[in-house]
Amino acid sequence: MSMPDEFQTLLVRRHGWRLDVTLNRPESRNAMSGAMVAELLAVFEAAAADTGLRAIVLRGAGGTFCAGGDLRDMGGGEQDGNDPAASLAAMNRAFGSMLQAAEAVPQVLVAVIEGAAMGGGFGLACVSDVAIARDDASFGMPEVRLGVVPAQIAPFVVRRIGLPQARRLALTGGKLKAAEAQALGLLHHVEDADTLESRLAEVLDGVRLSAPGAVAATKRLLLEVERGDLPALLDRAARSFADAVLGEGQKGLPAFLMKKPAPWAVAGGDQG
Amino acid sequence: MSMPDEFQTLLVRRHGWRLDVTLNRPESRNAMSGAMVAELLAVFEAAAADTGLRAIVLRGAGGTFCAGGDLRDMGGGEQDGNDPAASLAAMNRAFGSMLQAAEAVPQVLVAVIEGAAMGGGFGLACVSDVAIARDDASFGMPEVRLGVVPAQIAPFVVRRIGLPQARRLALTGGKLKAAEAQALGLLHHVEDADTLESRLAEVLDGVRLSAPGAVAATKRLLLEVERGDLPALLDRAARSFADAVLGEGQKGLPAFLMKKPAPWAVAGGDQG
Amino acid sequence: MSMPDEFQTLLVRRHGWRLDVTLNRPESRNAMSGAMVAELLAVFEAAAADTGLRAIVLRGAGGTFCAGGDLRDMGGGEQDGNDPAASLAAMNRAFGSMLQAAEAVPQVLVAVIEGAAMGGGFGLACVSDVAIARDDASFGMPEVRLGVVPAQIAPFVVRRIGLPQARRLALTGGKLKAAEAQALGLLHHVEDADTLESRLAEVLDGVRLSAPGAVAATKRLLLEVERGDLPALLDRAARSFADAVLGEGQKGLPAFLMKKPAPWAVAGGDQG
Repeated sequence: MSMPDEFQTLLVRRHGWRLDVTLNRPESRNAMSGAMVAELLAVFEAAAADTGLRAIVLRGAGGTFCAGGDLRDMGGGEQDGNDPAASLAAMNRAFGSMLQAAEAVPQVLVAVIEGAAMGGGFGLACVSDVAIARDDASFGMPEVRLGVVPAQIAPFVVRRIGLPQARRLALTGGKLKAAEAQALGLLHHVEDADTLESRLAEVLDGVRLSAPGAVAATKRLLLEVERGDLPALLDRAARSFADAVLGEGQKGLPAFLMKKPAPWAVAGGDQG
Repeated sequence: MSMPDEFQTLLVRRHGWRLDVTLNRPESRNAMSGAMVAELLAVFEAAAADTGLRAIVLRGAGGTFCAGGDLRDMGGGEQDGNDPAASLAAMNRAFGSMLQAAEAVPQVLVAVIEGAAMGGGFGLACVSDVAIARDDASFGMPEVRLGVVPAQIAPFVVRRIGLPQARRLALTGGKLKAAEAQALGLLHHVEDADTLESRLAEVLDGVRLSAPGAVAATKRLLLEVERGDLPALLDRAARSFADAVLGEGQKGLPAFLMKKPAPWAVAGGDQG
Repeated sequence: MSMPDEFQTLLVRRHGWRLDVTLNRPESRNAMSGAMVAELLAVFEAAAADTGLRAIVLRGAGGTFCAGGDLRDMGGGEQDGNDPAASLAAMNRAFGSMLQAAEAVPQVLVAVIEGAAMGGGFGLACVSDVAIARDDASFGMPEVRLGVVPAQIAPFVVRRIGLPQARRLALTGGKLKAAEAQALGLLHHVEDADTLESRLAEVLDGVRLSAPGAVAATKRLLLEVERGDLPALLDRAARSFADAVLGEGQKGLPAFLMKKPAPWAVAGGDQG
């Protein structure tokens, strides 16, 4: 599947091995509409097949990451079929499929969060590999206060911040400040306005220094851990190790010993 | 199953949609006797069937939460049947059944911890949705120092604070102060004597603002996450979402858009 | 299996119920060679059968814990058979088997970390029951920067510090300081040069006070939690509890009630 040429709800720009994806509905604080879900899914599916891509940077336009699901999609107005429950469930499940695709991209997925990341936006932050936020960002799961359920994001939130914190947040509709979200493991870095971009550059520099195939293989292994069966996982891991040593490692290990840059690291700071 | 009328080991009082449950054996620092286990189980089973109930507040009388299992139950004196091992195992397993019932109550379970929460009391704190402690509270798993095993609480502790912290605590009989217990994720809030009750009121206000059916459905989803099979869970989650939107959401979503209180939020601070 | 008499890559000394195991290849910063993996496996297998042993203290010679895998083992030079991929996979898998054996020892495994704990050394720290580090220690997973994969350690790292932190570290080849590693749950204690040994003594004193059979039974239960099936685990836990009460508990419970030391606690600070 190749990258679509046009988007209605996103800004998508490629810089060499880096793809910038910006949620772009600032008039509704980047609320996650059905159209945005479909476009994000198309981006992540295209990325999965794009071996030249090494990092995806996800952020929101207009000073907000994502205010949550688009309430207009929940009003029933657009569900004019025979079975509104089936229609709502399908729409909701599509959001979960997009989160599954985002979590599984073989690239490093970096979320840069300014402003609010609520509900579905909170869930999207939870599937990133590296999450950087402005110190005035805020996070929360307000669904139960509206009488609805944080359904598709629930498993991703539990895996990100753990069941004990997820239950408090989800069951009382609570909010978190950026520093709290970092303490819970949602965020890796909290920055002020002056250091946000330099932190992102530093993270991308770490991506540049890392072998793309090894990154993809490592990510696959990490995501399999929670599916259990440790001995079988260790068997697969051993094969993955051998493949890496006989592949990228044939260049990376001598480069390391000779203190020279590996071939994947020579591209410089311009991501390509 | 309806709520029992009388209790020997607990104080149970209902205030509207809120149930106060107090461990009430202060003469033995609220040690968890077989009778207390049975009465707590009856409370949680009755709560599971009580759709008017939205929060359960659990605390201990006399300045202690719960000092642990009642050692008299372990002396063998009361196990006068043919098989003391089977009798002890059954008594211990009943405690685990009570913890399972506590974890599964559809209401928000709030633990308010003053003084010690040791052994079984530590396990009880681990199944709460929101845990608030006094800053001079202490926590621990002293079992191995007595030659016994923190058997029923082990899985609940691992799920609450993670395996790495659980192994240090459980294997060396260590203790934690309240601030440490908060850093590990056991506690959500640590308060001094002056702010404990206002924090509880704030948490209960969050419960008041949240739709009871959505809370119960969300809690069910969160607890299922660790049982694996993500796609199947997301399918169930989508149906739960549709049910909520077509149920409580029919009142909650318009109220949110019109900035008015939802019907479940009007009851005020007196819990009903 | 009994403890080998001689080691090429380790220093192994027994003091009563305590076994000191020191990685001893300071000339290569204790890089984890195939020979070291085999010797560590032999130690942990012998320990598993040694009922007189209660603690294993693991550290590195020469001011480094372990700099990672031995790169000479990855050069292919020693893999002169017909199938280098199979040979590399077998070598890698042997490292995972050693980590499995280390995690499963019935004793309390204490890691004392000075200097670097990288790659395989990071993995080894992740299977300890109690991890103590010098405040100038450093931690990381540099594999992807060399084009290889942190294959066998991946599951142990995820279980120790959680998926969100593991993905950032593993996918960008990042490093951690000791204080950060403590915040993530890798370490239990961070000490300066003056307090490192007294902290170790305090941890070992906790081991001395704890009943060896109860410790082994508790460790077995804790490690089973992540394999799921809660009711079956609680059933087994109840039998383990009964065995403990009717075993070591027959001495430990009366000693506790009479405020006297239990038989396993009388040996004093010399570990036996």
